[in-house]
Amino acid sequence: MEFSAQQIASYLHGEIVGDAQATVHTFAKIEEGVPGALTFLANPKYTPYLYETQASIVLVNKDFVPEHPVKPTLIKVDNAYDCLARLLTLYEQSKPKKTGIDPLAFIAPTARVGKDVWIAPFAYVGENAVVGDRTVVHPHATIGDGARVGEDCTLYAGVTIYHDCRVGNRCVLHAGSVVGADGFGFAPTPQGYEKIPQIGIAILEDDVEIGANTCVDRATMGATIVHRGVKLDNLVQIAHNDEIGSNTVMAAQVGVAGSTKVGEWCMFGGQVGIAGHIHIGDRVVFGAQSGVPSSVKSDQRLIGAPPMEEKPFFKSQAIFRKLPDMYFELNALRKELNELKKQLNK
Amino acid sequence: MEFSAQQIASYLHGEIVGDAQATVHTFAKIEEGVPGALTFLANPKYTPYLYETQASIVLVNKDFVPEHPVKPTLIKVDNAYDCLARLLTLYEQSKPKKTGIDPLAFIAPTARVGKDVWIAPFAYVGENAVVGDRTVVHPHATIGDGARVGEDCTLYAGVTIYHDCRVGNRCVLHAGSVVGADGFGFAPTPQGYEKIPQIGIAILEDDVEIGANTCVDRATMGATIVHRGVKLDNLVQIAHNDEIGSNTVMAAQVGVAGSTKVGEWCMFGGQVGIAGHIHIGDRVVFGAQSGVPSSVKSDQRLIGAPPMEEKPFFKSQAIFRKLPDMYFELNALRKELNELKKQLNK
Amino acid sequence: MEFSAQQIASYLHGEIVGDAQATVHTFAKIEEGVPGALTFLANPKYTPYLYETQASIVLVNKDFVPEHPVKPTLIKVDNAYDCLARLLTLYEQSKPKKTGIDPLAFIAPTARVGKDVWIAPFAYVGENAVVGDRTVVHPHATIGDGARVGEDCTLYAGVTIYHDCRVGNRCVLHAGSVVGADGFGFAPTPQGYEKIPQIGIAILEDDVEIGANTCVDRATMGATIVHRGVKLDNLVQIAHNDEIGSNTVMAAQVGVAGSTKVGEWCMFGGQVGIAGHIHIGDRVVFGAQSGVPSSVKSDQRLIGAPPMEEKPFFKSQAIFRKLPDMYFELNALRKELNELKKQLNK
Repeated sequence: MEFSAQQIASYLHGEIVGDAQATVHTFAKIEEGVPGALTFLANPKYTPYLYETQASIVLVNKDFVPEHPVKPTLIKVDNAYDCLARLLTLYEQSKPKKTGIDPLAFIAPTARVGKDVWIAPFAYVGENAVVGDRTVVHPHATIGDGARVGEDCTLYAGVTIYHDCRVGNRCVLHAGSVVGADGFGFAPTPQGYEKIPQIGIAILEDDVEIGANTCVDRATMGATIVHRGVKLDNLVQIAHNDEIGSNTVMAAQVGVAGSTKVGEWCMFGGQVGIAGHIHIGDRVVFGAQSGVPSSVKSDQRLIGAPPMEEKPFFKSQAIFRKLPDMYFELNALRKELNELKKQLNK
Repeated sequence: MEFSAQQIASYLHGEIVGDAQATVHTFAKIEEGVPGALTFLANPKYTPYLYETQASIVLVNKDFVPEHPVKPTLIKVDNAYDCLARLLTLYEQSKPKKTGIDPLAFIAPTARVGKDVWIAPFAYVGENAVVGDRTVVHPHATIGDGARVGEDCTLYAGVTIYHDCRVGNRCVLHAGSVVGADGFGFAPTPQGYEKIPQIGIAILEDDVEIGANTCVDRATMGATIVHRGVKLDNLVQIAHNDEIGSNTVMAAQVGVAGSTKVGEWCMFGGQVGIAGHIHIGDRVVFGAQSGVPSSVKSDQRLIGAPPMEEKPFFKSQAIFRKLPDMYFELNALRKELNELKKQLNK
Repeated sequence: MEFSAQQIASYLHGEIVGDAQATVHTFAKIEEGVPGALTFLANPKYTPYLYETQASIVLVNKDFVPEHPVKPTLIKVDNAYDCLARLLTLYEQSKPKKTGIDPLAFIAPTARVGKDVWIAPFAYVGENAVVGDRTVVHPHATIGDGARVGEDCTLYAGVTIYHDCRVGNRCVLHAGSVVGADGFGFAPTPQGYEKIPQIGIAILEDDVEIGANTCVDRATMGATIVHRGVKLDNLVQIAHNDEIGSNTVMAAQVGVAGSTKVGEWCMFGGQVGIAGHIHIGDRVVFGAQSGVPSSVKSDQRLIGAPPMEEKPFFKSQAIFRKLPDMYFELNALRKELNELKKQLNK
């Protein structure tokens, strides 16, 4: 499909500078622009590319004034990045969608499947499971007995939702992600560990997205809850009885131990580890690889293990490499001081 | 199913305080108790909830004496937590079980499958593979050619057991876990890395449980062995030729590099990393995120990278944030001392 | 199959010391040698095992001279380890191979599948997807619409290749690995995060091997590229728009954040984390658990967070445990110095 600068500017309420008849059929980053591609300029760092790009159309912010002649057609908009996101979404939505229940899918007789769904070959929908309208279930996804998945969800290939767990509306579960595996609960006995059956469930509320091979365990009793709008990257671990507040985002390989409550609008960098049985407030930001052993109040930007404020952390980190010199100097000072004292006490 | 306090007390050899006719049909945490739920009080921290809970029956320790009037029926037992675990297990076992080999499963003609199994739709059992009695194989699980799985195991959805690997009796493999993928072995050449074929196997002995998306690699030659009673949480990595001793437990996202031997009854916190080709003794406890570069003797509680005893580690960690002050003070001392020396030498 | 020392020596151009008629049918490590096994001695540390091993044939380096009588037949070769790798490869290649498209596989009518492939039961090949000659697709693998997989590849069970992604020739993808899941891109709004559609792809070039449950995300626009000869261990995360240079190897649980460029011939230890939007040069070696916040030039061996040269890092790390003593000593020095000054100013 092709779109002209005219059509795009009209959709975005933007202003055209250059050839209104220029057309595009794809998207590209500004440094990789090719004829027929639409790109954008939001970060001033990338401005030099504007004068070299082969892209046909560039979205720019309203206040942008080029300092040199520009070859592509510019479309001036309020926020170039937001407008790009809107166009990408439009592009995605325009793709043909598969629908229907493939004859090679397994749907248990007692399952209830909504309308306009796509249930792929080899997808499995268990007894009494529910799949909402317009939800897409890719090959090899498993929706366990009694599990419920809402409307407009996408379950990519190999997703597993264990029995009785619940997924809200408009959720995206990437390939290999697992919702509702047993919490890690064992009671030690002299002969070995005895399993504590995990009879609770896991709940993903509306608008949650979880990454490839990410795991959200079921609760021992009650529910592990991932609240509305949470986004988890790949290979994240959410343990039994955790509660993750709305609109919190976690980068890849974060792990949260059991029975911990995380607030809303938090941001965790990659590979962060959070201890069990603690509370993290709202709007808490943890830098990558932080290790968090105890509760943390709202509205803090922290990093490290245990986490501290960013500025002193980076200062301490910088001095870490001076430790051998400091150690040497400390011993020298001691020696010289003792020498002085001896002199004075003579 | 409903049970009365009378029935439960009789099963647990407990003593009833209150209405012996009270009935329950579910379980709940004490702070989430609802009518019809059984709960328990083991941790004294939760005692205040006893006087508010809506649960119908509460298991308490024999020596517990309430300080205020209590609404639910109490059942006094030797160990409330253990008794809860026993009831949960009973509850799990009472659930109806699926049996049979689904016509949509693939069973190779040369495979041997025991009795009273459930082999789900889209499960795959390869050539000469063996599945023991009463084992449950969920959808999309793969049991490779020549692989052997014991009795009373559960393989959840999407589990992969590579060719020739072995799983003992009463093992639980959670969704997406992988047993027997190739060890990471490559020989450098000027043109690139050449693969060292991994012709060994991976063995899980009896009573092993491994979490969702956890990986146990096959050996280069010989076997990677996870001994009896080991419990691994989600997203754990066990590399080729590792040997993990009986009853060792590892929290989520732990990684053990190749050819390392870990002893019995160890406990590793989340995100711990263990180097290759080393020995970890028995009953070693590593705190979360520890990095272990070299062998460690038995019976130690360590944390950090490299791991040290907990108390000095936490002390050093606490002083880390004072490093900038220390650095400043050290420079000040040097200056003042030099000044003094100058004065004295005048 | 059995081979004689004569046959093996002739294949390897080696020299026999001992019984040329000795036969072997399997491989073993020297410390686990059994009659009928071939083993090797490359690392001098293992020499003592040579005099005890029950193996029938041992590959040794040309210059090796035993100090005691040796029971097995020796075959002297230029490089015992390389020769072992060659034999293992031969052994693997001699195994019978499955071919054909199983009637229980799903192949979309518009897909193109090469010759001499094996497409297993429950494998899924989407619309317009391409599978090259001699490629093996295990059960429950998914090749998405428009995705292209080259020749001589192995896709183990449960691999997912998202739509339009590309895999080169001779690639190995282990069970549960995911190529082309959405990059982690969301734009914050007051109501929550809005998804940035990820319309790019992910590309694995020739001779790439990726481990079990490893994830390579697709690009926002353009492509995430894993260049020729890269080897990734299990549970690794490669984020959107990353570019990983040829022949770079990463141990398990490494994570690379988005839009980062890693050079050729790098080696990353386990659990290393690399920030987004940075450049790592060629031949960079990072020790396990390193955290890399900013760009790093070529030809360095670094460790830590931020990474520093190995020797000063280990020195600083060693002094970390002396911090409490240093802190105490610093305070003592201050006190004594103040005392001295007081004395002097009297």
